[in-house]
Amino acid sequence: MEVGFLGLGIMGKAMSINLLRHGFKVTVWNRTFSKCNELVEHGASVGETPAAVVKKCKYTIAMLSDPSAALSVVFDKDGVLEHINGRCYIDMSTVDADTSSKISEAINAKGGYFLEAPVSGSKKPAEDGQLIILAAGDKALYDEVLPVFDVLGKKSFFLGEVGNGAKMKLVVNMIMGSMMNAFSEGLTLAERSGLSPETLLDVLDLGAMSNGMFKLKGPAMLKNSYPPAFPLKHQQKDMRLALALGDENAVSMPVSAAANEAFKKARSMGLGDLDFSAVHETLKAPDHSS
Amino acid sequence: MEVGFLGLGIMGKAMSINLLRHGFKVTVWNRTFSKCNELVEHGASVGETPAAVVKKCKYTIAMLSDPSAALSVVFDKDGVLEHINGRCYIDMSTVDADTSSKISEAINAKGGYFLEAPVSGSKKPAEDGQLIILAAGDKALYDEVLPVFDVLGKKSFFLGEVGNGAKMKLVVNMIMGSMMNAFSEGLTLAERSGLSPETLLDVLDLGAMSNGMFKLKGPAMLKNSYPPAFPLKHQQKDMRLALALGDENAVSMPVSAAANEAFKKARSMGLGDLDFSAVHETLKAPDHSS
Amino acid sequence: MEVGFLGLGIMGKAMSINLLRHGFKVTVWNRTFSKCNELVEHGASVGETPAAVVKKCKYTIAMLSDPSAALSVVFDKDGVLEHINGRCYIDMSTVDADTSSKISEAINAKGGYFLEAPVSGSKKPAEDGQLIILAAGDKALYDEVLPVFDVLGKKSFFLGEVGNGAKMKLVVNMIMGSMMNAFSEGLTLAERSGLSPETLLDVLDLGAMSNGMFKLKGPAMLKNSYPPAFPLKHQQKDMRLALALGDENAVSMPVSAAANEAFKKARSMGLGDLDFSAVHETLKAPDHSS
Amino acid sequence: MEVGFLGLGIMGKAMSINLLRHGFKVTVWNRTFSKCNELVEHGASVGETPAAVVKKCKYTIAMLSDPSAALSVVFDKDGVLEHINGRCYIDMSTVDADTSSKISEAINAKGGYFLEAPVSGSKKPAEDGQLIILAAGDKALYDEVLPVFDVLGKKSFFLGEVGNGAKMKLVVNMIMGSMMNAFSEGLTLAERSGLSPETLLDVLDLGAMSNGMFKLKGPAMLKNSYPPAFPLKHQQKDMRLALALGDENAVSMPVSAAANEAFKKARSMGLGDLDFSAVHETLKAPDHSS
Repeated sequence: MEVGFLGLGIMGKAMSINLLRHGFKVTVWNRTFSKCNELVEHGASVGETPAAVVKKCKYTIAMLSDPSAALSVVFDKDGVLEHINGRCYIDMSTVDADTSSKISEAINAKGGYFLEAPVSGSKKPAEDGQLIILAAGDKALYDEVLPVFDVLGKKSFFLGEVGNGAKMKLVVNMIMGSMMNAFSEGLTLAERSGLSPETLLDVLDLGAMSNGMFKLKGPAMLKNSYPPAFPLKHQQKDMRLALALGDENAVSMPVSAAANEAFKKARSMGLGDLDFSAVHETLKAPDHSS
Repeated sequence: MEVGFLGLGIMGKAMSINLLRHGFKVTVWNRTFSKCNELVEHGASVGETPAAVVKKCKYTIAMLSDPSAALSVVFDKDGVLEHINGRCYIDMSTVDADTSSKISEAINAKGGYFLEAPVSGSKKPAEDGQLIILAAGDKALYDEVLPVFDVLGKKSFFLGEVGNGAKMKLVVNMIMGSMMNAFSEGLTLAERSGLSPETLLDVLDLGAMSNGMFKLKGPAMLKNSYPPAFPLKHQQKDMRLALALGDENAVSMPVSAAANEAFKKARSMGLGDLDFSAVHETLKAPDHSS
Repeated sequence: MEVGFLGLGIMGKAMSINLLRHGFKVTVWNRTFSKCNELVEHGASVGETPAAVVKKCKYTIAMLSDPSAALSVVFDKDGVLEHINGRCYIDMSTVDADTSSKISEAINAKGGYFLEAPVSGSKKPAEDGQLIILAAGDKALYDEVLPVFDVLGKKSFFLGEVGNGAKMKLVVNMIMGSMMNAFSEGLTLAERSGLSPETLLDVLDLGAMSNGMFKLKGPAMLKNSYPPAFPLKHQQKDMRLALALGDENAVSMPVSAAANEAFKKARSMGLGDLDFSAVHETLKAPDHSS
Repeated sequence: MEVGFLGLGIMGKAMSINLLRHGFKVTVWNRTFSKCNELVEHGASVGETPAAVVKKCKYTIAMLSDPSAALSVVFDKDGVLEHINGRCYIDMSTVDADTSSKISEAINAKGGYFLEAPVSGSKKPAEDGQLIILAAGDKALYDEVLPVFDVLGKKSFFLGEVGNGAKMKLVVNMIMGSMMNAFSEGLTLAERSGLSPETLLDVLDLGAMSNGMFKLKGPAMLKNSYPPAFPLKHQQKDMRLALALGDENAVSMPVSAAANEAFKKARSMGLGDLDFSAVHETLKAPDHSS
């Protein structure tokens, strides 16, 4: 099976390498062209433009950083739309439902098939093929690309009409963002109250709240280390979009709103490119020692 | 080993039954005396007053509902203080550090030994002997009562000076309260946005945030069912105390503060005696159908 | 001076009547056509379409309910653009800066002149010609229409480039929304703590916080009366847009975010068409008497 | 009329000088004794201890910084209680209702008369005799000391049972704290969105929200100047106590809770001794220029 792959950021690179390892023929494209080189070493071909990739491959997957990149790759000159007639486009970027719908309509209008399929999980699950895939749109296309999803993820869901994948992703990430703040506030309170935050990690890990995120991020947070698995600015974008979804449906979500403001505070501190766990820094008392 | 046990609420009953099952001789006391009967059927003796229990047993454990009950059992007429000279008192109630210190000082002043040992975990872990025990105070006493803790819990920690057990407990419960709100907001957003909240539970369970609390409480919350494992009014009290601890140490915790207000909203709706997951009800749109 | 006037809601009606009273010739248009009748009684002419009004009048003012209405009147068939060449358009609706920029660019591209001029103040100041006008865009046009602004408002500001009027309006309304919540929480706390909320109004009115909004809205709020001077759904929309503006500029605003969630809660309770002071209802304990 | 005056901080000094100017004989006491000197220059006598002041004066007023100081002056050795029999004590400190009740009960038990009378207004109104006095307790005593209140304040209220003065004060200060945050967030949003915050002050001053606090504090805040009229740590203490009062009565107040966390953030930044308007600093992006 030959697939195109647009977007070789942290996620896209790991995903396309996985596909190559599992015997798929992959043609890649990335805006910053030099990033394609490493994929070529793994056996990928390179397309000059999104349009060229789509022309060559029946199935093209996209994994882009935000709604504007997702739109640009489709609608710009030499974009996906130019050769989509009769071909299939699977957008795995995290975008809002409106963006997804706009792309879906344009592709359908040109005779193409569309599936949105955002994922839950960041760098590590992407490398391990352990993503959770939240697909929506064309059910027949979903069934066709299951072999791809089986390589990329540990589980895929088909959620109905276009937009539902985007929405589910936002809900999951909103919960994640609030949980991260809950965790960070607890670690900070422990430390400033004279308790050992390391012991707090042990206590949490023994109880009903024990979870992979606390286990993975906690020890690094205590060392003020935030290597970007999921950049804070993207987490904040997702919370913004989730709150906007709540606004549309008149759902009041005071805890998520407070968490969103904490992420915005972190952005104002210049932490947007660190891991989203860097929201921890917003809780620290400034150092007056210097 | 003979132990006294003061307080036979949901937690105390389960814990004292566990001790009896593991061969401890237990003398129980409860303010509402009739609650002692079931324990007698399991083989317990009954003490007339807290003082009588302490007089009879070298080690007396207390598991009371709140700070005022914890103080009352110690300081009132026929209370623990009357016979504590040379004896040991282990208070496993969840109280604030001030209350714990006050009890500690009084017991030490009368020649007794004191350990605070609040627990993490509610009804089910109490029944299964799977509590997490957060002990602080007299280290020698801690070592002596390890056989008791081995029956009641799956792990115990010794955290240093009196008050640290109380504080650690509050930090853990504060994180729990914020997480519950994060979860509830996500479930509500999914439902009102036309997504299946059951699928959201499945998606969450596959990811890094998967945890026992979501698994245990989620399905019941979707059925608006909140059988009280940990009453909401106690959860809110713990958040209040945790925020007060933050206030003392100038720790700003906006997400926990928002979660606390949600629990207060739930109390104002008359939900204080339900499980703390009933905070879910605060997010619902009122039914205008009637 | 002959002016066109598009939009005869609560605000537009009061403003166009004011212009008529001060001797302006006014040609009105409203989507629901019957609303024009009352203005005709005051001496207005009627235009069939926005385009017809613009064709007839050198200066056309718009006062529409939201961004989509503001866009529709300009871009739809028979819209403002069709005859704007060489004419002037003053949009006094409250919209976001993006909407305003979009309108500005289209009008300039067609050879028209544009001023955005949202107002601060609701029904009563509109009737009394006491609005505060926040103009931005074409400075020469601003100078030309000062006689109009002198009738409609007690003061006008020229704020620079298009978008700044919209932004200033949003900032003002955001402060207003948070203040309303501060006020409502105080009234509620007084009442539930056994204090007289009427006395609280007196105390507030004597201090440094005394302001017209508390004086105007307070007594009605205590009677659960919320006649819509500024509908809650519009207030919440403005808070949403203000928070989005903060998001763009990485400004964390936790108090405004909490206030916004309270307004969303009010919307979910079906209060969107009442005055924005109806957010007071979100703080009440439900009545369990029935 | 001869009055005692305990506590010569910012407020107490201004108030006792006012009384001297209006012909009252005043005997002062302050913990840091040297502060009495300036009052002596204005004609005051000095008492060695609170007890000595009470012994000498039928009416003694106290204006102390916090609940612990208020309790200490009454209950400590050489405290008010020692000579209160048949005498009158008017505590104008801002304390919580519990503290006030404790003092009231002790004084009544010793045969004294008690009035709590916290004030609204800070340094300037204290100097100008323009405070708002929130009295509660002994109605006959209230009537007797009206001549004193007429000098110190522009208006006094009698609010019923002891505790109500304290509660009313907390409600007023809670509203003030939230309003300050609303204002500060608006100023910050204006500035970072490219608007003139000075113009925002002008716009606000023309509208229904115009109030003395914005007028007084705004220009200084824009210059990052926060000379302490009402110290931030006291404002935050009052918000804490107001939120605790809400907690007792199950009143959920999400906006005040968010404002309280902002004040706590300011405390953690070492701003507790500046004016409460210094909460403005919490919203600033850190300066990365150095």
